[in-house]
Amino acid sequence: MMKPIKVGMLGLGTVGTGVVRIVEGHQEDLARQVGTSIEITRVLVKNLDKERNISIDSSKLTDNVDDILNDPEIDVIIEVLGGIDPSKEYLKTALRNGKHIITANKDVVALHGTELMELAEKSKCDMMYEASVAGGIPIIRTLTDGFSSDRITKIMGIVNGTTNYILTKMSQEGAAYGDVLKEAQDLGYAESDPTSDVEGLDAARKMTILAKIGFNVNVELSDLTVKGIAQITKEDIAYGKKLGYEVKLLGIAERKDDSISVSVQPTMIKLNHPLASVGGVYNAVYVYGEAVGETMFYGPGAGEMPTATSIVADLVSVAKNMRLGTNGSKLPPAYRVKKLITDEQIDSKYFLLLNVADKAGVLARITQVFADYEVSLESVFQQPNATNPSAEIIVITHIANKAAMNKVMADFKNLEVVREIRSVYRVEG
Amino acid sequence: MMKPIKVGMLGLGTVGTGVVRIVEGHQEDLARQVGTSIEITRVLVKNLDKERNISIDSSKLTDNVDDILNDPEIDVIIEVLGGIDPSKEYLKTALRNGKHIITANKDVVALHGTELMELAEKSKCDMMYEASVAGGIPIIRTLTDGFSSDRITKIMGIVNGTTNYILTKMSQEGAAYGDVLKEAQDLGYAESDPTSDVEGLDAARKMTILAKIGFNVNVELSDLTVKGIAQITKEDIAYGKKLGYEVKLLGIAERKDDSISVSVQPTMIKLNHPLASVGGVYNAVYVYGEAVGETMFYGPGAGEMPTATSIVADLVSVAKNMRLGTNGSKLPPAYRVKKLITDEQIDSKYFLLLNVADKAGVLARITQVFADYEVSLESVFQQPNATNPSAEIIVITHIANKAAMNKVMADFKNLEVVREIRSVYRVEG
Repeated sequence: MMKPIKVGMLGLGTVGTGVVRIVEGHQEDLARQVGTSIEITRVLVKNLDKERNISIDSSKLTDNVDDILNDPEIDVIIEVLGGIDPSKEYLKTALRNGKHIITANKDVVALHGTELMELAEKSKCDMMYEASVAGGIPIIRTLTDGFSSDRITKIMGIVNGTTNYILTKMSQEGAAYGDVLKEAQDLGYAESDPTSDVEGLDAARKMTILAKIGFNVNVELSDLTVKGIAQITKEDIAYGKKLGYEVKLLGIAERKDDSISVSVQPTMIKLNHPLASVGGVYNAVYVYGEAVGETMFYGPGAGEMPTATSIVADLVSVAKNMRLGTNGSKLPPAYRVKKLITDEQIDSKYFLLLNVADKAGVLARITQVFADYEVSLESVFQQPNATNPSAEIIVITHIANKAAMNKVMADFKNLEVVREIRSVYRVEG
Repeated sequence: MMKPIKVGMLGLGTVGTGVVRIVEGHQEDLARQVGTSIEITRVLVKNLDKERNISIDSSKLTDNVDDILNDPEIDVIIEVLGGIDPSKEYLKTALRNGKHIITANKDVVALHGTELMELAEKSKCDMMYEASVAGGIPIIRTLTDGFSSDRITKIMGIVNGTTNYILTKMSQEGAAYGDVLKEAQDLGYAESDPTSDVEGLDAARKMTILAKIGFNVNVELSDLTVKGIAQITKEDIAYGKKLGYEVKLLGIAERKDDSISVSVQPTMIKLNHPLASVGGVYNAVYVYGEAVGETMFYGPGAGEMPTATSIVADLVSVAKNMRLGTNGSKLPPAYRVKKLITDEQIDSKYFLLLNVADKAGVLARITQVFADYEVSLESVFQQPNATNPSAEIIVITHIANKAAMNKVMADFKNLEVVREIRSVYRVEG
């Protein structure tokens, strides 16, 4: 029997509390899998005297991180502080001191993952981060182990619960963005400063991590184009529905030959696509592999217990590796040269909502622009606007390349009959 | 650099061909992950001279299994023959000869998995079987690794593509079972003898495997209650839809305290449940964990390339273990004592379709029977039957225990006003 595995935890907020609950509640099952017991021996907190809704021996709490990072007895560090500073430095020190690290911190993993991974390899330590993307969905394992034999060509993710909650409500109730956002803030589903969620930045960090693992390329946050949900109107959603689409904030990572592209943007997704029915705060990741075809993984994207589940699953993996003496044996995921896809190479359908002058020949002028750049159309739908002498035209294109669409858009801006390009969405499914 | 890993394959049908395609097509990626190359050196076939739609060196083919099982150079055996005999004996010999085994064979794993697993442990060999359940969905890994920290309490699976195809068609087209089955046979989606699929036996074998892993209990096929889809009428599906349900052949494994129950049966599932929209030949497995909550894993349940993906992912795992010297280190999954749930402990909603005499007081008589056994009703819906002087009553109960429902059913059989209990379904979602 191996000696107990000792864990130091940085942070005891919502997720940290969940980790304590699982490790203590499932002692027997964990020991059965690992071959020894797992003990959380020290926990870093800001305030030693704070009331907590969990019973934890106060002698385990410390407000001095060195008590944990420099404790030679501690084998594994779980970081649930969030944010870049000081988490990143704590994790680096932990690795330098020979401790395995498990983190739920998408910011650190997205921005400094490569550096940490290299340090982990050098220190023969494990670095695990299942909880950093899509909370309770074991998507990191699925990409690295489950699909290890396949060539993944597309990953599409609903990886931000707040925006998915907002879009689901807008769709179900025909409500406006601002109203639903306020309601979500009142319910605690959205932060008082919702920028990171609604502008797509949180999703972008998660997609950086998924794309890197899925494509084995060193994707950086700055490689992504990112667009949030604040411009989505209830009309967009209503028109989408009419044509059989749901609007979702999708992270899209795709590979074409040797080049990749990663983006986050509101997307019209066909109602019969498995991602279209992912509602509320749930997350889902759709993975297309050349051999396996279409797959999707659905579950809670955040929350105390789901996120803690992923962290403790990582802890089980680290502990098994310790028992087998195989820590730090994971190959670094980014062995391919990074080449980014150009606009000419991005092929997709598009949804456009145009506000146009309501007079003869307008539709002919507009469809001619598409024809000029060889963009063919799947459906066109025109209706008068009730309030002023103009009409609305909705167009869904066949698959077109983005460069051609950019030219179409530029022409529309110079075309007198087009009063406004009200909305442009990528279309999937 | 380790020496190449040599693989012998038993069978070169559809799935075997896919395995060759992936191993040859992804040589570089596989070597990158494993640290050495992987070679399929011998393949057992029935007919050496058969034309094959894959180019393979004819010197690799053999019709003598001993050329593979007794070849000391071969490290890993992949079995894609299917059926119990002679696959089981081949796998046992392989293990006795110190070879790791990978199998896609749900029959062998469901019926003889424990015996093989014990032999594998004794021989310090790996035994992997990701492809035996739900083809391309990495559900075995998800249960063993992804949810290693959680206590799974329910697994519901659409794990048979043929029956899901038939039910999807019946639902979409309002067609009768017999007609759709014939069409599926013509298209090659159903076997000419469809018994194993439509009677739920194939799904039962897969659920045996999932329940065993999910609950760490030595579930045997004989522990399951199994019902197929042949009795489902288009009326059942139409009434279900009217009330917001889709009929699916579901495997349901559930745990209550220390007892478990595993079954396969047609089930009415609420339209907003993630399993309800799984259509066609696709598979999906819904997993509920106490900590993680609701999750679902969706993908192709069969087919050359999806199944081959899972087999080669297993091969990567075996090869990594070889590199690290950790083969056979997996703990056996069934360490809990098996206790089966009694009917009194199975709680579920039910859907009933009754044909009753169309006269005063009938509904009162019927609802009294439910009341007698304290089964409360969620909705009741009555309509006259166009063709004869009787009425149809559809009832959806609140959660009731199965023992009480059995008593309700027995009373209905003796009740003069109930002409026929036309359908009974469990309800989920």
